Amino acid sequence: MQRVYLDYNATAPLRVEAREAMLDAMDLIGNPSSVHAEGRAAKGLIERARAQVATALGADGADVIFTSGATEAAALACIGRHLHGAAVEHDALTSWITPDLPADSDGRVAVADPAQAVLQLANSETGVVQALPNGLAVSDMTQAFGKLPLAFNWSGVEMALISAHKLGGPKGVGALVIKRGTDLAAQIRGGGQEMGRRAGTENVVGIAGFGAAAEAAGHDLAEGIWGPIEKLRNILENTIAEFSNETIFVGKAAPRLPNTSCFITPGWKGETQVMAMDLAGFAISAGSACSSGKVKSSRVLRAMGFDEAMAGSAIRVSLGPQTTEDDILRFAESWLKRLQKHRGRLA
Amino acid sequence: MQRVYLDYNATAPLRVEAREAMLDAMDLIGNPSSVHAEGRAAKGLIERARAQVATALGADGADVIFTSGATEAAALACIGRHLHGAAVEHDALTSWITPDLPADSDGRVAVADPAQAVLQLANSETGVVQALPNGLAVSDMTQAFGKLPLAFNWSGVEMALISAHKLGGPKGVGALVIKRGTDLAAQIRGGGQEMGRRAGTENVVGIAGFGAAAEAAGHDLAEGIWGPIEKLRNILENTIAEFSNETIFVGKAAPRLPNTSCFITPGWKGETQVMAMDLAGFAISAGSACSSGKVKSSRVLRAMGFDEAMAGSAIRVSLGPQTTEDDILRFAESWLKRLQKHRGRLA
Repeated sequence: MQRVYLDYNATAPLRVEAREAMLDAMDLIGNPSSVHAEGRAAKGLIERARAQVATALGADGADVIFTSGATEAAALACIGRHLHGAAVEHDALTSWITPDLPADSDGRVAVADPAQAVLQLANSETGVVQALPNGLAVSDMTQAFGKLPLAFNWSGVEMALISAHKLGGPKGVGALVIKRGTDLAAQIRGGGQEMGRRAGTENVVGIAGFGAAAEAAGHDLAEGIWGPIEKLRNILENTIAEFSNETIFVGKAAPRLPNTSCFITPGWKGETQVMAMDLAGFAISAGSACSSGKVKSSRVLRAMGFDEAMAGSAIRVSLGPQTTEDDILRFAESWLKRLQKHRGRLA
Repeated sequence: MQRVYLDYNATAPLRVEAREAMLDAMDLIGNPSSVHAEGRAAKGLIERARAQVATALGADGADVIFTSGATEAAALACIGRHLHGAAVEHDALTSWITPDLPADSDGRVAVADPAQAVLQLANSETGVVQALPNGLAVSDMTQAFGKLPLAFNWSGVEMALISAHKLGGPKGVGALVIKRGTDLAAQIRGGGQEMGRRAGTENVVGIAGFGAAAEAAGHDLAEGIWGPIEKLRNILENTIAEFSNETIFVGKAAPRLPNTSCFITPGWKGETQVMAMDLAGFAISAGSACSSGKVKSSRVLRAMGFDEAMAGSAIRVSLGPQTTEDDILRFAESWLKRLQKHRGRLA
């Protein structure tokens, strides 16, 4: 039986448009910093991708600084700035901020001083979407970019982090987007690439893929591709709720990403569920994937007020453009069967 | 007429082995940090590439920490350590070190205290190869890796920087190689990837390409591929010397990379030569390519004692496995023709 991939928030499969752009980029032999024809061709490709990303993000006129991903962009945005944020932020942010902003039980964060704060637009584990206050210093838009209509230029945010692989680009490329003219010292220094903000020969193939994926994701979004996906997500939740009334759907009262469902089934470890479902042919996750094999209960859910045991009993199912109703029904059936087994063992 | 690419030290064309590995990697949809089958497959591919790179570098048992390139690896190796080096080092190193070690007129650097020093194995502009002292803190092996037989484990070096695109891998991926057990704090923090030394979802496609390219470059090196290339480089230099006895071949008295020729033709600006040769169909460079369009005389040549005017009259021709004798003869003919024109204008 074909495996079913329901872990789009961890990473999305590569879009065909990105694959093609990457193949084309492989044929360009120049270094973008070289002044000869081969170099200029590679440089042109990067600038094209920069325009594609800016357009898709509603950031025309802003500076798009390509990085090796949102994690590097977070460091570039946050180091030495003593910003504040909530514990629902991704590890890439909490490494640099004071995590003292409160989140309510639906995951909504109250920001006291936007100019000194970090706030994600959407949470990767729960899908909860935040209202960004005007003048916000940094927003992690990684999960929202491509899934929600959004325009950096109208967001009132000074800096945003984005990543290619969450919207069907390659892994290992992202960007820091900043208002033009913002002061920013490079952390990776040397050849002066990326307008002096980020040195090193550019990941030309990856950047080309990012540009193409962002453009394609923008088209999909405009065409309403996420509406049917949200319906599938709701079918999943309703099916599970019908047969498992103790299951809690996290953040359901808040605005959420259309593709994300995070649910807690008390007494059944998330880790166990992930492994059981993996064996059954379904790829899902417990918490964030960016933890390199670490197994710990979700900091995000703890910050929303769930206790250790509850936070440890959550799984995340995240859908994407390729997800079908059959995938969802098969998943629900398989998961419910395993839930019954689990209950049987307890009885 | 087909263009002739003679700028391998700026970046080498992508090897077919790398291209194939990258295409295969594109089909793996998982995030390497995910615990499900898709995630484990992506993780396995990274670990395979890590072993390929370690083997090619003679670094089995050392830690290979994948980065977005040698520039990032340099920052990771050098930040906050107050190391010393010579001004012949790449900008990615001079950004972090005190450039007070002397170089002689052949570009050879004297290291007083290896434990506090940085020394490149080969210079990108001149090809000059250094004898690395035992106990050296950091060596930039970017240009040497793949072109010279070398083993990290026997080099006596604590940390080495390498880059994929100099040996036919993709641009935007490299590594810091360190003796196992060396203390090293991550600068890009978050998910704990790369053994806690470098966070962020890995550039899976790029890393796969790096591994395959390193393996292929190692085979080529073992098969003696650089011998014929060195002969072509010498044909180039002899041909030019025969007709232009004022031209100075930089570092010729020192051991050099087999593929690199840096020569100064007094009174003829390097920049002008690069542009003229570009129009004539040849890609070469004046100094390092990593300078994003900046035009300045070579710091490397200045450090070797050449004055501003001489340093500004240098070009670099760097050959690779695809370079043919015909390429070299056509280049020499074309260059000499333009030299005559240049002399005519002066007369």
